[in-house]
Amino acid sequence: MIEAVRERRAVGDAVEEIEEQVRLLLGAREPRARAHGPRFAHLWDIASECLLGGKLLRPRLLIGAFDALAAGPAAEASRRRSALRISAAVELLHFSFLLHDDVIDEDLIRRGAPNAIGRLLGGTGAESPAASEARRSEGRRLHWARSNAILLGDLMLAAVHQVFAREAVPEAMRVRLLDLLDRTITESVAGEQHDIGLSDGVIASDLDEVLEMSRLKTATYTFELPLRAAAILAGADARLEEELGAIARHLGVAFQLQDDLLCAFGDSREHGKDPFSDFREGKETAIIAYARTTSAWSRIDPKLGAGDFGDEDGRALRSLLRECGAERAIRSMVDERIRAAVGIVCQEEPAIPRALMRFLLGVVEALDGRRG
Amino acid sequence: MIEAVRERRAVGDAVEEIEEQVRLLLGAREPRARAHGPRFAHLWDIASECLLGGKLLRPRLLIGAFDALAAGPAAEASRRRSALRISAAVELLHFSFLLHDDVIDEDLIRRGAPNAIGRLLGGTGAESPAASEARRSEGRRLHWARSNAILLGDLMLAAVHQVFAREAVPEAMRVRLLDLLDRTITESVAGEQHDIGLSDGVIASDLDEVLEMSRLKTATYTFELPLRAAAILAGADARLEEELGAIARHLGVAFQLQDDLLCAFGDSREHGKDPFSDFREGKETAIIAYARTTSAWSRIDPKLGAGDFGDEDGRALRSLLRECGAERAIRSMVDERIRAAVGIVCQEEPAIPRALMRFLLGVVEALDGRRG
Repeated sequence: MIEAVRERRAVGDAVEEIEEQVRLLLGAREPRARAHGPRFAHLWDIASECLLGGKLLRPRLLIGAFDALAAGPAAEASRRRSALRISAAVELLHFSFLLHDDVIDEDLIRRGAPNAIGRLLGGTGAESPAASEARRSEGRRLHWARSNAILLGDLMLAAVHQVFAREAVPEAMRVRLLDLLDRTITESVAGEQHDIGLSDGVIASDLDEVLEMSRLKTATYTFELPLRAAAILAGADARLEEELGAIARHLGVAFQLQDDLLCAFGDSREHGKDPFSDFREGKETAIIAYARTTSAWSRIDPKLGAGDFGDEDGRALRSLLRECGAERAIRSMVDERIRAAVGIVCQEEPAIPRALMRFLLGVVEALDGRRG
Repeated sequence: MIEAVRERRAVGDAVEEIEEQVRLLLGAREPRARAHGPRFAHLWDIASECLLGGKLLRPRLLIGAFDALAAGPAAEASRRRSALRISAAVELLHFSFLLHDDVIDEDLIRRGAPNAIGRLLGGTGAESPAASEARRSEGRRLHWARSNAILLGDLMLAAVHQVFAREAVPEAMRVRLLDLLDRTITESVAGEQHDIGLSDGVIASDLDEVLEMSRLKTATYTFELPLRAAAILAGADARLEEELGAIARHLGVAFQLQDDLLCAFGDSREHGKDPFSDFREGKETAIIAYARTTSAWSRIDPKLGAGDFGDEDGRALRSLLRECGAERAIRSMVDERIRAAVGIVCQEEPAIPRALMRFLLGVVEALDGRRG
C-alpha cells in the first residue's frame, strides 16, 4: 500500500501545474475586471486568495487519473494541456458552488479562516467617501458581501462553461465533456436543494435521504466529474467511464461521511474545522439521521442547534452519539463504500488498466488515512 | 413612422416561434429535473410560468434584427433555427439575472405579480409531513424560496452556456457568440455590483455613476447582446456589429431612463409597475441623482425610502422632482440618446442595410411611444 501512495504522489501531484492554470484562467479575465474599477477588481483578488493555496483535491484527481490512463510522458502534450485547463475549471466550479452555499448557509468561515464572504466583509476594495458610513451599518456590510458572493459565483460558473465550450479537443469529446458538466451541475444543484430542504424542514429527515443528498451534493462533482473527465480526455471508452463513475460515487459518499465523522468526533487541531460546528448549526448529517432512529434521540434532539451551544455540550453530544451507535454505524458505512470501490477497482472483468488501478488504490489509501 | 412600426411587427413578431424554443429548452431538461423529485421539478414549473407569456423583448429584438439582415425567407433555414435557439437562451439569461437580482434586492413582486421567489413562497412543489411545520416559520419559508431562486438562477445560467456552446454554427461564429456572451455577463454583473454599491452606500451617488450603471446593467444584455448576436448569426462583418453595438447602448440607456420615468411619473394602470416603488425603496435612479444636485434635495431626501411611505408622499415627491427640473432633465437625456441612435441608424457612411434600418426605426418608434 505504501508503494501505491508513493506512486500516487509521483503520478498525481500536479499542484504547481494546476495552480498555474488557475492563475491563467483568472489572469485572462483580470484586465476586463480591472477596467470596471477597484470594487470589481477586488472580486478577482478574493478569487485568487480563495482558489490558490488550497488542496486542489478535484483537479488533482483529474490529472492523476488522466496521467495514469494516458501513460505519462507518452501522452500527447496538447491533450494534457487541455486536461490541465479542464481541471482548473473544475476547481472554479467548486469555488462557485462554495460561494453560493455560503450565502445560503449564511457562513462566514471555512476551515477556520474567513471564507470569501468573510473576506468581502473586510473591505470593498476601494475607499469611497461613503465607505466609512457603510462600515457603520453591519446589515448593509453583510448585504454587500453576500451580494458580491452571489455575483462572483455567477462569474465563476460562466467562466467554467467558457473553458469547456472552447477547449480545442475533437468535437465528439467536447460534447461528452459538455454533457458531463451539464449532468454534474444539475445533480449538484439538486443535492444542494435537498440539503436546504432538510435544514428548512421541507424534507423530513431520513438516513436514505441524507445519503442521497451526500451523493448528489458531494460525490457527483468532487469525485465523479474529475474521474469521468479524465477518462473522456484520455480517450477511454464509455464502459471505463461508467466504471470510474461507479467507483467515484462510492468514494464520494465515503468522503462526505468521513467529513461528517471528522467534524463530530475528530481532533479539530488536525482536521482544521470548527469543532462541533455541525452540532451548533443543527446540520442534518448521516450521523444525526441515524441517531434519530435510536432511543437516545430524546436526549440528543434538545442539544442540537441550541443557541447557547458550548464545548461542554459538544462533548456531551459526542458521547451520546457514540453510545447510541451512530458513530459506529456511519464508520461501517464508510468501510462498506470503500470496500465497494476497491471491489470495482480490482475486478477481473472488465479490468481497470494497471496504472489507473494503482492511482485509485492510492486515493483509497489516502481516504482511509483520514479517519486517524 | 407608422409604416416602420407595421414593418417591425411583420418582421419582428416571432413570439410564438420564440416561446416554442423556450419550451423546448426547458422541456429537454425536464425529465432529468423530475427524476430528482417533485421539489426539483417544481423549479421547472416556476421557470415555465415566469418565462412564457412575457414580452420577450430581448429575443424579439434578436430575431427581428436577424430577419432584417438575413432578408426574410431567403435566409438559410438552419441558421434561422440557430438564431431562434440563441434568442431563447438570451431570455433564459434575462431570467437568471432577474432571479439573482430579486434575491439581492429582497423583492417578491415584479410588474404587479409575484416574482419567482413570490411563487416559490406559495408552495414547495410537494407536501411532506414536515411541510406544514415549515409553513409556520416565515423566516424559513423565505430562506427556502430565496435559496431556490439562487439555485434556479445557476441552472438557467448553465443552460444558457450549454446552448451557446453546442449551437451547430461554423467554429469562428460560435467563438464570436461565446466572446459576446462572456463580455455581456461580465458587464451585466459589473453593472449589478454598481447598483448594489449605490444602494448599500459603498459608491457615492453621482449622475455619471448612475448612467454608467444603467448602461452596464441594462443596455448591455437587453439591447447590445440581441443586436450583436443577430449580426453575428446573419454573417454580418465586425464593422456592422460595432455599429449595432453603439446603437444598442444608446437605446438601452434610453430604455432604462424611460423605466425610471414611468415608475416615478407614469400611470401605474398603464405601465403595470408598483406605483412609487422606486421612491419607497429609495432606489438611486438617474432622476434621484439629478435631484441630489438641486436646492430641492433637502426636501426630497427625508421622504425617500421612508418606512411609512404612502401614496400621498409619492405624489408630493413627484411634484418636487418635477419642480426641481429632474423630470425634464432626464426626459431630455432620453431624447438625446434616441437622437444619437437614429443618427447612427441613418448615417450615410457606413450605411446600415435598408431592411435593418426600417426595423431599428420601428424599435425607436416603439421606445418613443413608451413616454405616453
